[in-house]
Amino acid sequence: MAAFRIGLLGHGTVGGAFEELLAQRAGALERLTGRRPEIVGVLTRSRGDFDDILERSELIVELIGGVDPAREHVRRSLDAGRHVVTANKQLLSRHGEELWALARERGVLLGFEAAVAGVIPVVRVLRESLAGAHVERIHGIVNGTTNFILSEMTRSGCGYEEALAAAQRLGFAEADPSEDIGGADAAAKMAILARLAFGVPVHIDDVRYEGIAGITADDIAYARELGLSLKLIGTAERIGAGLSVRVHPAFLHGGHPLASVSGAFNAVTVESPAITEITMSGPGAGGSQTASAVLGDVVAAISGTPSLGGAQERLEIVEDVVSAFYVHMEVDDRPGVLAQVARILGEAGASIESVVQRGLGESAQLVMVTHPLPQSSLRAALASIAQLEQVRAAPRAIAVINEEYL
Amino acid sequence: MAAFRIGLLGHGTVGGAFEELLAQRAGALERLTGRRPEIVGVLTRSRGDFDDILERSELIVELIGGVDPAREHVRRSLDAGRHVVTANKQLLSRHGEELWALARERGVLLGFEAAVAGVIPVVRVLRESLAGAHVERIHGIVNGTTNFILSEMTRSGCGYEEALAAAQRLGFAEADPSEDIGGADAAAKMAILARLAFGVPVHIDDVRYEGIAGITADDIAYARELGLSLKLIGTAERIGAGLSVRVHPAFLHGGHPLASVSGAFNAVTVESPAITEITMSGPGAGGSQTASAVLGDVVAAISGTPSLGGAQERLEIVEDVVSAFYVHMEVDDRPGVLAQVARILGEAGASIESVVQRGLGESAQLVMVTHPLPQSSLRAALASIAQLEQVRAAPRAIAVINEEYL
Repeated sequence: MAAFRIGLLGHGTVGGAFEELLAQRAGALERLTGRRPEIVGVLTRSRGDFDDILERSELIVELIGGVDPAREHVRRSLDAGRHVVTANKQLLSRHGEELWALARERGVLLGFEAAVAGVIPVVRVLRESLAGAHVERIHGIVNGTTNFILSEMTRSGCGYEEALAAAQRLGFAEADPSEDIGGADAAAKMAILARLAFGVPVHIDDVRYEGIAGITADDIAYARELGLSLKLIGTAERIGAGLSVRVHPAFLHGGHPLASVSGAFNAVTVESPAITEITMSGPGAGGSQTASAVLGDVVAAISGTPSLGGAQERLEIVEDVVSAFYVHMEVDDRPGVLAQVARILGEAGASIESVVQRGLGESAQLVMVTHPLPQSSLRAALASIAQLEQVRAAPRAIAVINEEYL
Repeated sequence: MAAFRIGLLGHGTVGGAFEELLAQRAGALERLTGRRPEIVGVLTRSRGDFDDILERSELIVELIGGVDPAREHVRRSLDAGRHVVTANKQLLSRHGEELWALARERGVLLGFEAAVAGVIPVVRVLRESLAGAHVERIHGIVNGTTNFILSEMTRSGCGYEEALAAAQRLGFAEADPSEDIGGADAAAKMAILARLAFGVPVHIDDVRYEGIAGITADDIAYARELGLSLKLIGTAERIGAGLSVRVHPAFLHGGHPLASVSGAFNAVTVESPAITEITMSGPGAGGSQTASAVLGDVVAAISGTPSLGGAQERLEIVEDVVSAFYVHMEVDDRPGVLAQVARILGEAGASIESVVQRGLGESAQLVMVTHPLPQSSLRAALASIAQLEQVRAAPRAIAVINEEYL
């Protein structure tokens, strides 16, 4: 049978790795699918013509990244009845609905396994294995850079800046790491996962996110004393008839399936009543890992796999979520401070699960873990606490994920 | 559109859970696929007629278990052009090739996600996401009963019999647990996973297996001292131009992704050069978990998913694998014993990574971890050691999986 013709847009680290992997595996794929995949054209800034490549391809692999001109290339490819495989999370978290609808309309595949969570096949598992399941919640460590930095701070006790420098030295963080450490990269991925899991449109603007730049070595040391480990966690969950999608640093109890995921790894836990939970983990996106995810989608396109269904319902975005919190305060080491802080928290509805207080000459550090309460109540309480004259700096709060696991 | 008609064979725990889950999710599945799934007939020992159910169904869900009469029912259903979804690992590990060939010939789906590893969608990931990948090795904890027992022995320090009784009390082990604790259940699952990962026929008779009945509280205590945790591990791996599929107790270093999987959980790690590794974990097969895996395959049948490709090549089964080993000996507490044992091991090519010796009055326990050597060499060395007059009981050996992970 004739070769399966692929047009490749972008030829950076991932594009090069994809070309190499495809050459290695072309024979095996031909035995598997009956057709030998072949790259018929490559578009880079300096070579190739998009119209010409489109004309000659059955499938376009988009590895340019960013919104423009990727959006126009993907739109035109789908519109011309070509399958598209992309690793572009920014594009899909902003313009996914438009592109998925176009793929449905034209009866072609828009594959995006490579856009989320490195080699972990979470897109396929959500689209197919769990298509019949009622998903309640997803927790994910979906950014390898930040997980590496937090793991390094935990392992060595070093500060944030030092761990970031180590990540850059080892190639786990880019020279400009702001998309990763600020949480925007994870937020885009969580928007895509939430769309898949809940069948409702989720735009990156629906995702609240914060990054890890404010985390101190101190927080991590206290957390360890309390049996907690710190991760940048993405959450997408049903809350009543609504939905919350968010990314923020969070403490996990030791028994949580994501607590032991360290280094530049990604991991995702999907919770649903019938299955309890599934956890998947693997290396975050390196060139060959991303290329491998792209290749899986290419196989699906050759074999014929159904496209993503239309959005099924509308869930409101819930802003004020309930959570337990770790609260870190610097206070004067004088009698009565703990009582005042505890009174304010109690009035806000926060009961205290554990307390660590440690004096340092005239100042002291007071660390508490609360039982769950609405985030808005905690914020109000912290604003009151900040007004106390014995409190030396604005208190810091970090969510604690406290579901109990086997 | 007309309902999607399902015939259900078997109505035990899983059958009942499937019927319930399908009733709950029928509306969502209709929105997703355009067709509402509906059970049109149920076959049990006391009610229903197979021919009548076959006639009226588009898909047969086989949850009877065992080889007969399940084999005949599945064969006849496929032959009549019906999709089949089954949770029957014994059937597929013995007669899979015949049944997969028949499904290909008739162009129907033979789904078996529920036969392996509980809710973990490892079948789909191997069939689809990793269809283009060159899989090197799979490690799996694929039997929840034995993992519960070993976790309980580790947690409480109790012996095997006591942990088994606890598992039975909590519903994690059957009254007759011999299939589970003897390793036959895990062996059947590993045969199926190996078939999928390597594209070659693998029969359960190709799988060497041993169970956990010989494990003592002592082994686990020593292992902890050495930073190891004990699991019943299934392995399927390429060795040169051949293949080894086996199930046996094995020690894992703390950093191994399966080391932290405890309780009645299952987990599978797939290794391939391009992806490094993916680990998936979740609860082992309970009624609703298995029903959920069956439902995923039903959705695939309604949506149309390609069937399993034919066997691609033949790999010879390799019997003598290379591994590091933990060796446990009871010896007289006299000078020279360690030297003699070390000499015999050295002559066999086994160098020693670590040693723990502990005296108990006139007898002593000598525990060693070796560097990797062929299993046959170790066996020969242990036979010589057993002949030494200072050795009081046959030495015990357990494999140590010593790949280094991040």
